[in-house]
Amino acid sequence: MVIVVKGTRKNPQVQELIDWIEQRNISVQATEGTQKTILGLVGDTSVLDIDTVKTFPVVEDVKRIQEPYKRANRKFHREDTVVEAGGVRLGGGNFQVIAGPCSVESEEQMCGIAREVQAAGARLLRGGAFKPRTSPYAFQGLKAEGIEYLTEAGQMCKMPIVTEIMSASDLELFHDVDIIQVGARNMQNFALLRELGKQSKPVLLKRGLANSLEELLMSAEYIMAGGNPNVILCERGIRTFETSTRNTLDISAVPVLKKLTHLPVVVDPSHASGHSALVEPLALAAVAAGADGLMIEVHNQPQKALCDGAQSLDCGQFAALMKKITALRALVTSFGAEEERV
Amino acid sequence: MVIVVKGTRKNPQVQELIDWIEQRNISVQATEGTQKTILGLVGDTSVLDIDTVKTFPVVEDVKRIQEPYKRANRKFHREDTVVEAGGVRLGGGNFQVIAGPCSVESEEQMCGIAREVQAAGARLLRGGAFKPRTSPYAFQGLKAEGIEYLTEAGQMCKMPIVTEIMSASDLELFHDVDIIQVGARNMQNFALLRELGKQSKPVLLKRGLANSLEELLMSAEYIMAGGNPNVILCERGIRTFETSTRNTLDISAVPVLKKLTHLPVVVDPSHASGHSALVEPLALAAVAAGADGLMIEVHNQPQKALCDGAQSLDCGQFAALMKKITALRALVTSFGAEEERV
Amino acid sequence: MVIVVKGTRKNPQVQELIDWIEQRNISVQATEGTQKTILGLVGDTSVLDIDTVKTFPVVEDVKRIQEPYKRANRKFHREDTVVEAGGVRLGGGNFQVIAGPCSVESEEQMCGIAREVQAAGARLLRGGAFKPRTSPYAFQGLKAEGIEYLTEAGQMCKMPIVTEIMSASDLELFHDVDIIQVGARNMQNFALLRELGKQSKPVLLKRGLANSLEELLMSAEYIMAGGNPNVILCERGIRTFETSTRNTLDISAVPVLKKLTHLPVVVDPSHASGHSALVEPLALAAVAAGADGLMIEVHNQPQKALCDGAQSLDCGQFAALMKKITALRALVTSFGAEEERV
Amino acid sequence: MVIVVKGTRKNPQVQELIDWIEQRNISVQATEGTQKTILGLVGDTSVLDIDTVKTFPVVEDVKRIQEPYKRANRKFHREDTVVEAGGVRLGGGNFQVIAGPCSVESEEQMCGIAREVQAAGARLLRGGAFKPRTSPYAFQGLKAEGIEYLTEAGQMCKMPIVTEIMSASDLELFHDVDIIQVGARNMQNFALLRELGKQSKPVLLKRGLANSLEELLMSAEYIMAGGNPNVILCERGIRTFETSTRNTLDISAVPVLKKLTHLPVVVDPSHASGHSALVEPLALAAVAAGADGLMIEVHNQPQKALCDGAQSLDCGQFAALMKKITALRALVTSFGAEEERV
Repeated sequence: MVIVVKGTRKNPQVQELIDWIEQRNISVQATEGTQKTILGLVGDTSVLDIDTVKTFPVVEDVKRIQEPYKRANRKFHREDTVVEAGGVRLGGGNFQVIAGPCSVESEEQMCGIAREVQAAGARLLRGGAFKPRTSPYAFQGLKAEGIEYLTEAGQMCKMPIVTEIMSASDLELFHDVDIIQVGARNMQNFALLRELGKQSKPVLLKRGLANSLEELLMSAEYIMAGGNPNVILCERGIRTFETSTRNTLDISAVPVLKKLTHLPVVVDPSHASGHSALVEPLALAAVAAGADGLMIEVHNQPQKALCDGAQSLDCGQFAALMKKITALRALVTSFGAEEERV
Repeated sequence: MVIVVKGTRKNPQVQELIDWIEQRNISVQATEGTQKTILGLVGDTSVLDIDTVKTFPVVEDVKRIQEPYKRANRKFHREDTVVEAGGVRLGGGNFQVIAGPCSVESEEQMCGIAREVQAAGARLLRGGAFKPRTSPYAFQGLKAEGIEYLTEAGQMCKMPIVTEIMSASDLELFHDVDIIQVGARNMQNFALLRELGKQSKPVLLKRGLANSLEELLMSAEYIMAGGNPNVILCERGIRTFETSTRNTLDISAVPVLKKLTHLPVVVDPSHASGHSALVEPLALAAVAAGADGLMIEVHNQPQKALCDGAQSLDCGQFAALMKKITALRALVTSFGAEEERV
Repeated sequence: MVIVVKGTRKNPQVQELIDWIEQRNISVQATEGTQKTILGLVGDTSVLDIDTVKTFPVVEDVKRIQEPYKRANRKFHREDTVVEAGGVRLGGGNFQVIAGPCSVESEEQMCGIAREVQAAGARLLRGGAFKPRTSPYAFQGLKAEGIEYLTEAGQMCKMPIVTEIMSASDLELFHDVDIIQVGARNMQNFALLRELGKQSKPVLLKRGLANSLEELLMSAEYIMAGGNPNVILCERGIRTFETSTRNTLDISAVPVLKKLTHLPVVVDPSHASGHSALVEPLALAAVAAGADGLMIEVHNQPQKALCDGAQSLDCGQFAALMKKITALRALVTSFGAEEERV
Repeated sequence: MVIVVKGTRKNPQVQELIDWIEQRNISVQATEGTQKTILGLVGDTSVLDIDTVKTFPVVEDVKRIQEPYKRANRKFHREDTVVEAGGVRLGGGNFQVIAGPCSVESEEQMCGIAREVQAAGARLLRGGAFKPRTSPYAFQGLKAEGIEYLTEAGQMCKMPIVTEIMSASDLELFHDVDIIQVGARNMQNFALLRELGKQSKPVLLKRGLANSLEELLMSAEYIMAGGNPNVILCERGIRTFETSTRNTLDISAVPVLKKLTHLPVVVDPSHASGHSALVEPLALAAVAAGADGLMIEVHNQPQKALCDGAQSLDCGQFAALMKKITALRALVTSFGAEEERV
């Protein structure tokens, strides 16, 4: 940690701060300038709260030097984490596409879509049973019944299933779910994250609309600190001033996260754009940028979808896209292989 | 609702859309231009999902004309809502200051601060027992014990108390709490909002960091739709590109909300700025802009605060600020009184 | 244009507004609801100023239906524009990489880099002579001398050159420049745009840090309205709350712009990210998303660059990246070719 | 400046960086941790370019400690700057309201409005002659003719005049203008700023839509570095995700700027909100937060305004607002006076 203070060590307030720090078994080295002094701290500074340090009136600025996340940090865990769910591996070179409808609507719908997305090459099946909707008057999902239909569709096709949780009190309904999704609006629902850390199913954690990548990693850390190392990060667009897309896909999040963490990173081009016509270019961009997977909304009849039809591909569009994704992923993999040879 | 479509009624796809709408007992009037047609819809359009409408390929744009919130809407409830908690009224001309520490730390601390803020003129006491922290390794609050200390301090001073809830499963611990706060990160934790709608204690609902005012009102609507009309809205700063303040206080939110809704609007200048030196100018700005109240962090020893000390006023600073707030509020009230006479 | 008004035609203020519109040779069709009326306008609504319409007290909302840009609009110009500069074509299937240093520093530097980027496959040479710097005390570019060195390097390698203009009064210095760049900070310097519309050299127009895609197209329209149709649009990242990258590359801008306009769209991954390590993944993402070209900063000795060294590739890195770009572009082209066959 | 590097001094790359810094007459003190070393630099670090430092591969992070602006910095110029224009003083306790129409439309209009705003208490007259408009097809202002009408109105009422410049090449037309305004879109038009630094008329510099307060101060520094110390800063709203207001007024900018700089700070509530109904609460908030002045759009017939009528007050509304502003300013001044007595 670096602390910038007004004045020099001759200032009793500066000395008081140094004493306060040293009492916490942290050593301090001061570099005095003409108007300010830089304090370099060595030791376990995680015990210092930045906000408390800032309350000392001589303090001008405080900077952490160590990232505040440990378990999620690639520095302490060099190799990629591979998350396994129902026999399917994601991360560490295992690229996967998660596909399915925004909402589970019926058994027929789920089974129909499952067959189609599986034939096209997806190996994980998604479908929303609990739907976070801005309006209390909008369709809120089939809940337990929805999980049931999704489970049946998954079992029929032998595809592991992914669905969103909105409250820890529903956790018992997720017994047959393979990957539990935390939605963007709950990324900092710390009570929920803590509960998900106490169980062992993989968690697909979506980035909040206004959350930094560091905050996303800190939320992953909540889950990991509880004992569950199986976290998949998902970039799904952030909120900006631009209104031509529903959100702004932060494509840089992919390489930045891959550098900072060992956890797998997937991209959701459907929610990021909000328009089915944009799903293909954003999906391909995500693969080119190095994502470990994609999460794509597919519906057999987008016009009859109960939710988010405007951003869903139909099954034919999805199959056509999967061919391109496969070809592109092979090319990207060959780039990596060549680099390793060099 | 207005729908803009490509082409004219001669286009069979346009006619198909019109039929689809009319089947829902909504009448459609078409205004044909040279390249596009405007469909004006009359009837209960709340049954139409905008996303579904957008999946029709001829649709270029869809606009709702009615606000999507009803119970929170001033159009259907002209007079200001007055929220009453423990004998204190807030809203409808009743201006209140809610004060206290970020975190409850001990009984002595709470009682000491309570006495001081009460003497200075605050009539509602705050203190965090459950603390949403970005890091799983940071102090998470005293929880049940914190609520106990806060309750004792409130009873000692006969001040109603306000504290944050993070999970509906903790609700039973809030028996003696007068106003339940929902933090910014949980503004769209719909599972929690729904539970708070089923009980009757007033809810202080903070705006999320990246949430629009309409979304804030929709979250209030969740609570109200459940049967609890006692919602207080709180502007506490939004996330922008500017880094000189912790968040950007959206002062316009005050007059915009006062126009759109009958619910009381309070401002939290402490979280908005993150710096104690900015609390005074922002608090005064909020009063001048017409806020119904303020929520201000006060600590007896900011440097020893376990959380957010940098933005806390000490008791002397708070007392000095209260004098200015009182004088300013009197002036603002006189402006309103004069207008009514005119 | 659609105007939503309070009340019905019986309200004299509504009728007054309708009269005011009809005097402008625009016909109005009213769809009356219970509380509001929707006015659909047919005719040349470009003569109506939205702001003026909003001053009528009965007006609740106004929406334009036609895009406000004409010359840049794909609806009126279906085929892709191909911009030609010094014998090199960009757009309409002609993919190009523009490469070179942030700043021109010397003749040797420019000639050395030009040879290297040309050998690697770039066909357009960039280099900054006028540098917009946040600080008046930072290096501001070699100006006329810089353009001279760049021109010599371009002539030596027979590469057309691209460089930024900061003031219309410098235009005469750009005689030998092939493409004139307008930087992000000048995207709405309308006096400059107007001057560039009066001359015929192609203009590479960078999106401003906080400008919407519609505003970018309106700025292109300024140039085109003056008579110069040769505009290349450049996405280079927008300003958001995220700080792990210098800006947030809005990758969706590529497919959105390709749909709205016939003008070529290039991406600058160097400025978007600010880190050389991110240039490759973002460049590949841009190609995958369908960009018509890339603009990449390359320096022979990034550590000795006078400006923006942190985001520059060295010549070896650039050559390695060009191989990947070429392979990826071939794949993306094959996707398009297959679709046309189908 | 503080530089964080990987490893310790034993790493030859760390030593190479230290040597490189010391060659520039800057002394370096290293604080070695287990994984990283903190380098504290003492001396004139303004010669170091942060971007260049970042190109050294061992560098993890670089932080400036000194603000990059000098002439605008309150640290080096404690007392408030008072800007004087045509006999009217602004800043240092001199509160002023600048009022007038968005666009100059005719001599009659300007003289009429001038008389009204003067009678209401404004002492500076504004009116746009050169109008930066997003669309090339919108009214662009009366230009030279507009300045003439404004000048006549100012002379008639003996009010100094404020109007916007869009290009340095128009400077000769500003001979009779008292304060030259730089609009938000030109805040980083450095060529224009530099020219305005070479002349002596006061400059009213508006903050750009996506510019930080530090960038605003750096743009002021451009003008001041050229020799013109008469800069007035203007907060007029920033661009965020919120759409209920045209921009988001950053009210915190007032106290933050007052702390960082000695220059006067005024607020433009008209552009910040875009709605006339919001001008009053935002104007009062700005006064309460400590602004040195306001800039308010006033039109005699807002519905017939050629530009921005929706946000203009009519003369009666302005006169009513001025009474409140005057009473509020007196109260705020009394707060300050009391503090000085204490």
